[in-house]
Amino acid sequence: MSPKITTELLKQLRQVMKNPKYVQEPVQAYIVPSGDAHQSEYIAPCDCRRAFISGFDGSAGTAIVTEQHAAMWTDGRYFLQAAHQMDNNWTLMKMGLKDTPTQEDWLVSVLPEGSKVGVDPFIIPADQWKRMAKVLRSAGHDLVPVKENLIDTIWTDCPQRPCKPLIMLDLSYTGVSWRDKITALRSKMAERKVMWFVVTALDEVAWLFNLRGSDVEYNPVFFAYAVIGMNTIRLFIDGDRMMDPAVREHLQLDSTLEPEFKIQVMPYGSILSELQTVGAGLSPKEKVWLSDKASYALTEAIPKAYRYLTPYTPICIAKAVKNASETEGMRKAHIKDAVALCELFNWLEKEVPKGTVTEIIAADKAEEFRSQQKDFVELSFGTISSTGPNGAIIHYKPVPETNRTLSVNEIYLLDSGAQYKDGTTDVTRTMHFGTPSAYEKECFTYVLKGHIAVSAAIFPNGTKGHLLDSFARSALWDCGLDYLHGTGHGVGSFLNVHEGPCGISYKTFADEPLEAGMIVSDEPGYYEDGSFGIRIENVVLVIPAETKYNFKNRGSLTFEPLTLVPIQTKMIDVNLLTQKECNWVNDYHQKCREVVGAELERQGRHEALRWLIRETEPLVRVQ
Amino acid sequence: MSPKITTELLKQLRQVMKNPKYVQEPVQAYIVPSGDAHQSEYIAPCDCRRAFISGFDGSAGTAIVTEQHAAMWTDGRYFLQAAHQMDNNWTLMKMGLKDTPTQEDWLVSVLPEGSKVGVDPFIIPADQWKRMAKVLRSAGHDLVPVKENLIDTIWTDCPQRPCKPLIMLDLSYTGVSWRDKITALRSKMAERKVMWFVVTALDEVAWLFNLRGSDVEYNPVFFAYAVIGMNTIRLFIDGDRMMDPAVREHLQLDSTLEPEFKIQVMPYGSILSELQTVGAGLSPKEKVWLSDKASYALTEAIPKAYRYLTPYTPICIAKAVKNASETEGMRKAHIKDAVALCELFNWLEKEVPKGTVTEIIAADKAEEFRSQQKDFVELSFGTISSTGPNGAIIHYKPVPETNRTLSVNEIYLLDSGAQYKDGTTDVTRTMHFGTPSAYEKECFTYVLKGHIAVSAAIFPNGTKGHLLDSFARSALWDCGLDYLHGTGHGVGSFLNVHEGPCGISYKTFADEPLEAGMIVSDEPGYYEDGSFGIRIENVVLVIPAETKYNFKNRGSLTFEPLTLVPIQTKMIDVNLLTQKECNWVNDYHQKCREVVGAELERQGRHEALRWLIRETEPLVRVQ
Repeated sequence: MSPKITTELLKQLRQVMKNPKYVQEPVQAYIVPSGDAHQSEYIAPCDCRRAFISGFDGSAGTAIVTEQHAAMWTDGRYFLQAAHQMDNNWTLMKMGLKDTPTQEDWLVSVLPEGSKVGVDPFIIPADQWKRMAKVLRSAGHDLVPVKENLIDTIWTDCPQRPCKPLIMLDLSYTGVSWRDKITALRSKMAERKVMWFVVTALDEVAWLFNLRGSDVEYNPVFFAYAVIGMNTIRLFIDGDRMMDPAVREHLQLDSTLEPEFKIQVMPYGSILSELQTVGAGLSPKEKVWLSDKASYALTEAIPKAYRYLTPYTPICIAKAVKNASETEGMRKAHIKDAVALCELFNWLEKEVPKGTVTEIIAADKAEEFRSQQKDFVELSFGTISSTGPNGAIIHYKPVPETNRTLSVNEIYLLDSGAQYKDGTTDVTRTMHFGTPSAYEKECFTYVLKGHIAVSAAIFPNGTKGHLLDSFARSALWDCGLDYLHGTGHGVGSFLNVHEGPCGISYKTFADEPLEAGMIVSDEPGYYEDGSFGIRIENVVLVIPAETKYNFKNRGSLTFEPLTLVPIQTKMIDVNLLTQKECNWVNDYHQKCREVVGAELERQGRHEALRWLIRETEPLVRVQ
Repeated sequence: MSPKITTELLKQLRQVMKNPKYVQEPVQAYIVPSGDAHQSEYIAPCDCRRAFISGFDGSAGTAIVTEQHAAMWTDGRYFLQAAHQMDNNWTLMKMGLKDTPTQEDWLVSVLPEGSKVGVDPFIIPADQWKRMAKVLRSAGHDLVPVKENLIDTIWTDCPQRPCKPLIMLDLSYTGVSWRDKITALRSKMAERKVMWFVVTALDEVAWLFNLRGSDVEYNPVFFAYAVIGMNTIRLFIDGDRMMDPAVREHLQLDSTLEPEFKIQVMPYGSILSELQTVGAGLSPKEKVWLSDKASYALTEAIPKAYRYLTPYTPICIAKAVKNASETEGMRKAHIKDAVALCELFNWLEKEVPKGTVTEIIAADKAEEFRSQQKDFVELSFGTISSTGPNGAIIHYKPVPETNRTLSVNEIYLLDSGAQYKDGTTDVTRTMHFGTPSAYEKECFTYVLKGHIAVSAAIFPNGTKGHLLDSFARSALWDCGLDYLHGTGHGVGSFLNVHEGPCGISYKTFADEPLEAGMIVSDEPGYYEDGSFGIRIENVVLVIPAETKYNFKNRGSLTFEPLTLVPIQTKMIDVNLLTQKECNWVNDYHQKCREVVGAELERQGRHEALRWLIRETEPLVRVQ
């Protein structure tokens, strides 16, 4: 990996920072965040502006360029990668280290008095703008919106914004029509006394209209905004996608409809001016609902007194609770995914001893097996295929420079998943193809105990996921071990593999309470730097739990694993398990055998079926 | 309990709300909060203004009086009591119920356009002012500070502000001199680049100067403020307390001292004008550090640009970590406290069957036994002595109207504690003097399992207490049970029995990480409305834990119980305990027997010693 040479680019950027064609007044600093205008986790090539200007293409990072300096803030996952990819023009700001200044503090320390700091108001979320503007203002500087993105002005071979065909999902997948979703949304709006709702997150637009796309990798979404009024629906979307007769029929664009369900299609780029028109026409008490993560540009389009901002939108919350059709789809997707992984692990067991399987080959093989399954669309995230010391790099992705060969002497960790038309999967298994050491088994078993502690937990209705996080760590903590990531995230239904508003983490974010129908991951781990990584991840569905008593009639919840892939018993030190934990593993494996076994049988995959049966033999605990 | 007749008082209050002698412009509403000028939990009689105006004397509640209405907001603990104590002039606003408006929303709904809402700026914390002012302003009203407290103007027989003698604590109790505490504080100030620190909480003033008082009940504090500069110390305190030669010597008021340790004593009432002088004389970059809970009046004395507000002050954080002398003192206090409780429970065992012991008699007897112990000062909070259904009222305090007789047929719950010169105690035990039912034992055992899960938990350095809360609930949750309060609070060292900045709660407040030397309570419970209450509470010390491994050299922590009072084994269903839990109980009882037994022996309390020995017989678990 050689660094990108950025001397010329930075020179050009510094010129446009003073060019009256683009800026009203020269800006002394320009901020280049990671995101796109929708605060997406995965972004399209045309939005990879920070990677373009710096060379650093990790998933998280913010670049700031001043007349003298160019600095990059990123977190511990990317210190090494950023250092490799950036040339000497750049200073790496290691976030999370004690002596690393915040972006605001650094700006204050390097800028001449009364400076202007520019940023694209479409890219920066409103809450971040507010925080940053406050600090800069108190130090005598100004944060200013620069309408034209300055990176785009110098990015001569910038790729086009993708505009791929749409996928329509019928009721058998979604369970609820887009019309009913709009009606439900409007009733939430009425409850809060708001007249307009602005849909800015791409997965929220996709969910609301029962459409999917492929404009970005891994997330089946498309570039669009929507503005929902009590009597109007405006969809901002580009290209000839709306010419497709199937799409027109799905959205009933040519039908005679009640006016309140008539969708007005408008150009993607017209959202700001339309919203400004809405903003200008508001009467007193007419509020507009936006996510507090919406861009500064869109937020500012609505006068402050008329804004109603919440951390989670009603769509985000409705989307998280899967209905019966979605749950059924998720179940099916996970069975197919398990078939693919049984094939893969059976294949690996045979091939790894030959010394010919690298991390990349294994990842490709996993994709190949998945792609053989019905309704497979694409992967749901970049496969983490890592062996030995690479497994300890939590967000590792194999590239030719790091690609390691799987062997019978090292632990192999595979974290992977796919998008199927009926659901999204995300599963991690940690395997040994030789004989694991006692220490490796011990660590694996603590992680398994944590996984079970969450999966089998019973908790009252209304409990927030962060209250379950310590259950996943307790067995590790007892021995002085831990892992430095959260335990679980929300999972979409043929949508983003990471979604809000729930999760399981020690970080107390504003998570919404868990409720039946929500789907999250359960993925504790243990990582020994330079040696190995262990993680056991299932996607689990929140379901009602039967309990002996029922305090204040609140009702209780627990989890049902949707993922049905054997957990390698070879890695388990049975003597460290309680009888209850042992029973959990055996019951789980029994279910894998029955449900996935039947599907393997149906698909005529007899060798993989034999592998499954062998891998799901009950554990026996010696008393 | 008959309600207080408030017709005349309200009439008077409504007059002064319009009287130009007190208000620049008439106020259409006047807010009467619970607190005093220091945001104390326990307040002096002269600060019980809300009780005076309404009759309702619970510990939490806010009164708002408008020209037409008088309304009282309080929480579920006090719905019944408030309804009994207030007359028809008052509307009870039940906080926590879905349809109850917030104070701001209610004001907006009842006030005429462009109203003024008055409040005493010394009583309302700055953060609350900010929240309230914002809502009122956006509805076209104004929150205005009324300098003279309007209740005081009509409270003709208002008691004097207490001004009791001070208690000096020498190094054997505090471990650190007040001079060293000031030096440490100044180094924290230098770190944050602040020039002044304003001490507003009463326990912080007491801790800083190694002084105690008795101006309010239960909390050994005295009315004072302090303002610490890098070279000056100002103590604002009233009365002739500073004439006491011992106090003068303790504070070295008459010694020739380096100027930076010379304490200037000023009248309590001069804090505002002194602070305004400080505020007016600040040069750019000279910041003043205040708690964000400090009163609006004091916060406003410092121009906004110069304020440095934090949720926890450096004193609050330093105070929470007990040094070796304080820890030693806490241990001693808990042994004495255990002696008193062994005496009490032995006495109750003999007396309860006679049917002559009421909740009040039991509480008095507990105080009597405690007062026989060395360095006893007072109780640390109002004793919760409750039997049968009264035990299910979480903040119950026996009064003649509710006073119930203890019997061999009901569970008895005693939550009590004391202030000794060497430490503060807080312990809850739940006892049955007859034969508990299987269900009572089952519930008790779940609570015990939760208590042990927290007490025996091992967790990494840097863990916040709220991450341990679910451990206390897990056994209850498994059966569909729970309790509706937090699990633990910080405990002062001969100071407030409830103190920040740490605790164990499902409510995610901004708690500071636990560290060795901190002291918290561990008190899960279970409450069956109308039948019984169960709570098991120890005060526990955070100590380093030995673990098999040491991830990233972070080190681990666990708890050591300071409370050493037997947990009634009669209430335990041994078959519901794991072997590990059973061992914990036996080890704990062994320690009670050894440590408290030796003290009972030394004090010649042989009957109580025999009781202790019987109550600490090891549990035997049948496999």
